[in-house]
Amino acid sequence: MSADTMKAIIKPTAGPGFQMAEVPIPTVAPNEVLVKVKAASICGTDLHIYRWDDWSASRVRPPLVVGHEVCGEVVERGANVTEPEIGEFVSLESHVVCNHCSYCRTGQGHLCENTRLIGVDRDGGFAEYIAIDAQNAWPNPPDLPLEIAVLQENFGNAVHTAFAVDLRAKKVLVTGAGPVGLMTIATARAIGARAVYATDISRYRLDFATRLGADLALHAQEDDVIGAIRRETEGEGVDVLLEMSGAPTAIDQGFALLKPGGEAALLGVAPGPIEFDWNHHLVFKSARVVGVYGRRLWHTWYQARGLIRSGAVDLSPLVTHRFKLEEFDSAFEVMASGESGKVMLTP
Amino acid sequence: MSADTMKAIIKPTAGPGFQMAEVPIPTVAPNEVLVKVKAASICGTDLHIYRWDDWSASRVRPPLVVGHEVCGEVVERGANVTEPEIGEFVSLESHVVCNHCSYCRTGQGHLCENTRLIGVDRDGGFAEYIAIDAQNAWPNPPDLPLEIAVLQENFGNAVHTAFAVDLRAKKVLVTGAGPVGLMTIATARAIGARAVYATDISRYRLDFATRLGADLALHAQEDDVIGAIRRETEGEGVDVLLEMSGAPTAIDQGFALLKPGGEAALLGVAPGPIEFDWNHHLVFKSARVVGVYGRRLWHTWYQARGLIRSGAVDLSPLVTHRFKLEEFDSAFEVMASGESGKVMLTP
Amino acid sequence: MSADTMKAIIKPTAGPGFQMAEVPIPTVAPNEVLVKVKAASICGTDLHIYRWDDWSASRVRPPLVVGHEVCGEVVERGANVTEPEIGEFVSLESHVVCNHCSYCRTGQGHLCENTRLIGVDRDGGFAEYIAIDAQNAWPNPPDLPLEIAVLQENFGNAVHTAFAVDLRAKKVLVTGAGPVGLMTIATARAIGARAVYATDISRYRLDFATRLGADLALHAQEDDVIGAIRRETEGEGVDVLLEMSGAPTAIDQGFALLKPGGEAALLGVAPGPIEFDWNHHLVFKSARVVGVYGRRLWHTWYQARGLIRSGAVDLSPLVTHRFKLEEFDSAFEVMASGESGKVMLTP
Amino acid sequence: MSADTMKAIIKPTAGPGFQMAEVPIPTVAPNEVLVKVKAASICGTDLHIYRWDDWSASRVRPPLVVGHEVCGEVVERGANVTEPEIGEFVSLESHVVCNHCSYCRTGQGHLCENTRLIGVDRDGGFAEYIAIDAQNAWPNPPDLPLEIAVLQENFGNAVHTAFAVDLRAKKVLVTGAGPVGLMTIATARAIGARAVYATDISRYRLDFATRLGADLALHAQEDDVIGAIRRETEGEGVDVLLEMSGAPTAIDQGFALLKPGGEAALLGVAPGPIEFDWNHHLVFKSARVVGVYGRRLWHTWYQARGLIRSGAVDLSPLVTHRFKLEEFDSAFEVMASGESGKVMLTP
Repeated sequence: MSADTMKAIIKPTAGPGFQMAEVPIPTVAPNEVLVKVKAASICGTDLHIYRWDDWSASRVRPPLVVGHEVCGEVVERGANVTEPEIGEFVSLESHVVCNHCSYCRTGQGHLCENTRLIGVDRDGGFAEYIAIDAQNAWPNPPDLPLEIAVLQENFGNAVHTAFAVDLRAKKVLVTGAGPVGLMTIATARAIGARAVYATDISRYRLDFATRLGADLALHAQEDDVIGAIRRETEGEGVDVLLEMSGAPTAIDQGFALLKPGGEAALLGVAPGPIEFDWNHHLVFKSARVVGVYGRRLWHTWYQARGLIRSGAVDLSPLVTHRFKLEEFDSAFEVMASGESGKVMLTP
Repeated sequence: MSADTMKAIIKPTAGPGFQMAEVPIPTVAPNEVLVKVKAASICGTDLHIYRWDDWSASRVRPPLVVGHEVCGEVVERGANVTEPEIGEFVSLESHVVCNHCSYCRTGQGHLCENTRLIGVDRDGGFAEYIAIDAQNAWPNPPDLPLEIAVLQENFGNAVHTAFAVDLRAKKVLVTGAGPVGLMTIATARAIGARAVYATDISRYRLDFATRLGADLALHAQEDDVIGAIRRETEGEGVDVLLEMSGAPTAIDQGFALLKPGGEAALLGVAPGPIEFDWNHHLVFKSARVVGVYGRRLWHTWYQARGLIRSGAVDLSPLVTHRFKLEEFDSAFEVMASGESGKVMLTP
Repeated sequence: MSADTMKAIIKPTAGPGFQMAEVPIPTVAPNEVLVKVKAASICGTDLHIYRWDDWSASRVRPPLVVGHEVCGEVVERGANVTEPEIGEFVSLESHVVCNHCSYCRTGQGHLCENTRLIGVDRDGGFAEYIAIDAQNAWPNPPDLPLEIAVLQENFGNAVHTAFAVDLRAKKVLVTGAGPVGLMTIATARAIGARAVYATDISRYRLDFATRLGADLALHAQEDDVIGAIRRETEGEGVDVLLEMSGAPTAIDQGFALLKPGGEAALLGVAPGPIEFDWNHHLVFKSARVVGVYGRRLWHTWYQARGLIRSGAVDLSPLVTHRFKLEEFDSAFEVMASGESGKVMLTP
Repeated sequence: MSADTMKAIIKPTAGPGFQMAEVPIPTVAPNEVLVKVKAASICGTDLHIYRWDDWSASRVRPPLVVGHEVCGEVVERGANVTEPEIGEFVSLESHVVCNHCSYCRTGQGHLCENTRLIGVDRDGGFAEYIAIDAQNAWPNPPDLPLEIAVLQENFGNAVHTAFAVDLRAKKVLVTGAGPVGLMTIATARAIGARAVYATDISRYRLDFATRLGADLALHAQEDDVIGAIRRETEGEGVDVLLEMSGAPTAIDQGFALLKPGGEAALLGVAPGPIEFDWNHHLVFKSARVVGVYGRRLWHTWYQARGLIRSGAVDLSPLVTHRFKLEEFDSAFEVMASGESGKVMLTP
């Protein structure tokens, strides 16, 4: 490796799989910083790109450095950058937004019409270095464990979801106990849920959910979800649904269990259009529903920081597997197994 | 007719059609008042019961006096009633609620788990008299025109829908311009919508929508709804969707036009489960959606009263046809034609 | 004592002090239940009536049975009562509301214009029995400890206050650590406050505050409150103020520390009109402020129940002193000392 | 005048009065635009600076070009500017914010801790040219009348205030009918207030208030404000208070008339700390109060644009007097008289 190149995991061409490559270290634009990556973690989206599904094929333009959950150290700053400082330990917000559109100008940066996602629309962070807008580099305390710093982006999805409803003293159902669902369970507990019920189709994850505070963790296909939660709630159902799976059956179970006047936050991505009982699930029930995308910029980051620093949410059990960048195939294999929490990569 | 009987439109037995009948004048329970009906109006629900569709067959238990949009004069009071006064001119809230369940006890009476709807679950008001809980009799000024007093229940649906979102200075799409949709258009204008676009499949109703303040009224099947509204909104789409039709294509058009971060209130009842583009219409769009049922008890009545008394909403053009109770078959024929506003019946 | 009389603490005539008396057991009206009192607790309001200050003299009309924080068993029901059941263990909501005024009809029963407070406007519960509207008797699990059941009314003030703002992941200042302030601290912790700072003028209560979860407990007169909290918050101040003292200096300190855009909930009753820095504390700061009175009927009761049953808030340390009804003078002496949590009386 | 200088109204030194001066045309920084001023209008703040009161003396650092309500044409752009275009007709947001602090990053730019106000903290727009951050230049349609374009900044205060509460179908009291109060009255009408009552101490302004839609306009000192509004509201008082005066008596009258559970938005700046009936005006009344400062960046601008373009609010009667820059002494004399709407200056 020369002084000007770095190793990176890339999608070299349209098609399945990734490749280790030696690529140029990115140069920084005037508003950017160069971050020396200390750790990255794998998201479900990365798995889609790895497998090269329809969505990936329609959006990703290889060659591309992949990866969007990243923490590291600021090692260089563009001409216009005043913060963060060189040497600061930062976690990255993955959506680079324009600051100019009507969404950005009204506190809705997560809906920016010009957003570009690192590792998807531009080079990402499964690499030794990444260049990114300075405002996307969120300063951490220098001693924050890597395992927590690297999760902040993904934890933000959980916080955004749990904070999108009022679950104080309420009974909450979390459908889907993958990593974001798990962090959502912990968050719901931390902000006063009366009870948290979880469903998933992996026993591994259901055990994990119980350890993170779920009162009841049910297998969506093998357990009588509706019967069990109705019994647990004295026939009433739940006040709040946090839908993290995108699975049509989970969506249906969740809304069937939602009380009239209840609230639902929807983060899970469905496989496509679904059949949905509009009248009973929404209209007659007077449900309040909100779609959740990304993190609110930058409210969610402040909220996530508060939960972590106060100790209200402990993310330390979440990372269950660690690999070197070069071992990416093993890492993706673990990730695909459903028998993991978060999988972390280090350069 | 003896002194103890009255004429009424009834559903005599399971099956299509109604019948004029001579039935006993109802007696009042301790918390009830007896109201001498001055006018009633026909709702889409009445048409369903008239035709005896699946929903009616599963819910209505004949024999039953039908009709739930009613105004009249209080002529008798049960032992426990302290208001309204004998002689007061009242409009009726059609949902008789229990005051005891957790919904009633938390300001969500419209979701009462023991609600009984007049004209559906108990005798209604297409008759000379109706007995109903005193709290359901909403006092009007003595000189309020019958045509306005009789509409208050149905107007409440429009108010509940338009007030369920924030449409101040926003661009609003109303899908469905039947009577409730029309009143919703007028309400949206009155509370500061920047623009109101309407769709329907009846040219008669689209003309009506324009007269009530719609900036653009489009035929949902024959016009290029999506193209026209995109042009009108400089490509952005609408901030708010008020879905009053229940038609799957209208739902799809409405959500396709809804801006990211937009709000939708849903009153229209779909023909059954529908196919819905979960990801693009809700999740990625971060839409905020609320189902609307009945009227908020009793917030909506206060709000509706405010809009009427200030002159902000003028309901006088809404009633387009008037019939005597006996002419109910003609009245329902007009109602079914799609070429009417509200149809009023008088005893 | 005959079968028809009971012992009770009464205010016999206008003037300081109370008296034990033998009075008739109350008879129940059709909507009322008779409750055999199992425990009662003393509120600051009771102390005002005991001392017969200006407020008491202007409102209370002796002779009167005092006391409004009460739990007990339903032993008789009026003719119209369908719930709770005879034998149920209940806590009492102290405000008897009319259900008819516009406030009651719009989910704002705590603002009822005809409210009558037991122990103040009508006979209370420092007695063997009390008659009260059935809807004011809130069912408890039969095994709920007396020390918790008796606190529900007062705990409701804390819940109402803490739930009136959004304190999730926020830094919160609670000014005033009397019993309600203490329960507010515990509640704020339970629903996700990032940090809770408390002030009071009693070292006893500051110690108590720390035991219930305050991160910092400061003497409002002897410590440098503003300096200490500014240091603790890196100069920023607090996001949320929960004002439980009514003390003008606490109000001033609290608003001086409140961040721009912050929220304040105000429960404390000031000694009279106060001098207030309108511009800097409200206008320029864009503060959001809400006055808090009583409990939201009945939302707060459901929320309080949720926090207790989930174990999120543990009220068991709150009752620090127990007396028999007859020992009321000793009880009020302890209460006046400032060296107590809640003081409980049993018949 | 050379090609590099322009005429401007300046505060030359600490002390009363202004002066016409020939000063350099400002140069643009990379993120700025140069705007050729077409019109400016006078704000109460300008009058304070003109008179050189305590507030001015403590904040303003002469020499300074004054004026912050400005519209004009973009004639030059800094190196980093991509919008607006050269030649665009723009109105200026007067607060230049940092985009970096936690307020700016959470949609609360109006609370930016580094804000600099043109005409107060840096050179303003009573001049032929002004340089300002590009994001502060809000594009108008080319044919928007000068009299409306110049008011957008000040209209934004009215919109911010009226939109800070829910006044749909509510009875609203506006205390203070200066220009912002007048625009607030028009806005309240446009977004569905049931009734608008206004108070002021100028008969000229009360007449103006009536023309803009106030149902009742009362002299705060000579009329029986409380009696008259109680009669008008059947003894209930108002649902919403919009406090635009800062006058202690108006604040007291306003809160005395506010219903329990009512909402108040406070824009008026008081002469200093005031005596305030904390218990009856806030706590017992469970009032919801919000301080209002500036405009929400940039929500308010979008909302204001919506109201103007839909015709819901007609600002054309507001400008009552027009002067050339050179006539500034006459302009300020009119402004001080209380017998004007807005006073406009043109270069």
